[in-house]
Amino acid sequence: MSKVCVRAFSVSLDGFSAGPNQSLENPLGVRGPELMEWVFPTRMFCAMQGVAGGETGTDDAMATKGFDGLRAWILGRNMFGPVRGPWPDESWKGWWGEEPPYHVPVFVLTHHPRADLPMKGGTTFHFVTDGIEAALERAKEAAGGGAIRIGGGPGTVRQYLRAGLIDELHLAVRPVLMGAGEPLFAGLDLDALGYRVSEVIPGERATHMLLRRKS
Amino acid sequence: MSKVCVRAFSVSLDGFSAGPNQSLENPLGVRGPELMEWVFPTRMFCAMQGVAGGETGTDDAMATKGFDGLRAWILGRNMFGPVRGPWPDESWKGWWGEEPPYHVPVFVLTHHPRADLPMKGGTTFHFVTDGIEAALERAKEAAGGGAIRIGGGPGTVRQYLRAGLIDELHLAVRPVLMGAGEPLFAGLDLDALGYRVSEVIPGERATHMLLRRKS
Repeated sequence: MSKVCVRAFSVSLDGFSAGPNQSLENPLGVRGPELMEWVFPTRMFCAMQGVAGGETGTDDAMATKGFDGLRAWILGRNMFGPVRGPWPDESWKGWWGEEPPYHVPVFVLTHHPRADLPMKGGTTFHFVTDGIEAALERAKEAAGGGAIRIGGGPGTVRQYLRAGLIDELHLAVRPVLMGAGEPLFAGLDLDALGYRVSEVIPGERATHMLLRRKS
Repeated sequence: MSKVCVRAFSVSLDGFSAGPNQSLENPLGVRGPELMEWVFPTRMFCAMQGVAGGETGTDDAMATKGFDGLRAWILGRNMFGPVRGPWPDESWKGWWGEEPPYHVPVFVLTHHPRADLPMKGGTTFHFVTDGIEAALERAKEAAGGGAIRIGGGPGTVRQYLRAGLIDELHLAVRPVLMGAGEPLFAGLDLDALGYRVSEVIPGERATHMLLRRKS
């Protein structure tokens, strides 16, 4: 059975997982990159950019673990392309250039049908127009029992949580106050949905909280 | 100049500082005590109960620091007495018995005028009916330059934050999911209000976040 995971997913102290006013210039929203600042200095992230060096430590270990055993990803449409911009124009091939960092099938939730988009390095983008459960079914077929990561954005994670389809989450709580943006928790009763925090791991630039379903 | 502080103030991972359905039986709301579980085992809390022992460590140090240099407190009315219950009946003398743990003047925000209530050990409750700014003025007079702690509840803290009257906060982020209750952050833009997280201190049962005004 495939595990369905949210991993290395950042949230500000005040509960936001993206900044406000997402755009082509600010794909994570205004101040959104501050949510990710625990990832950028890591050795993992440097390696992903083809750069040597980077910090090792807890944050690096947690970011690296985020890729363990993954056989498929699911992304909301804004994770693949800008809200207002060239996508769904077919010239848009995602944020990551010719060789995206997934290296497995990636299922993109969208209302716009589009042919499969194979990229260098093993990533193929599949565009799923019939909803989150259909995307998960296709990801499970592709994953062959391996783990599936719901990459975001916050709206997509919330949809899967509400539907009871996520087995575990690794949240990275960033000590920043966004004040505005896309909330992760608002209106979502994670206790009633069956989750509890199973572990707290203090990192260099984030506090990592692991959530599982109550047993 | 008196510093106006919120200290050792608990908040769940999902942003709640009290449980739902506060009552005489559940003064912190249903599951509210889980927010405080980082305090109960500490040596400081044991000493406050007149009991020997208790755990030392980071949580104990942070709970103890919460009392440093305090010369006055401000409490919302629900911190002094139950929402539905004997208070404002004058037989009600607070949650803490004959010798409350404050040992300094405590200003209680209420709509019900009541005579000053001196207790054993130096605590005197003063009932302030003309609003949060009047309470702060009186607390400042009483504190003579010493620190003033806004004890809560969440609604009172939020009122003082909105009014721009709080200098620093120590929040204790508990790895629990409340799902419902009294939110601390919802609708409050702490960034726009001028706060930033200045320090993160991992404790045994809570992650302590210190917030100050941006300089």
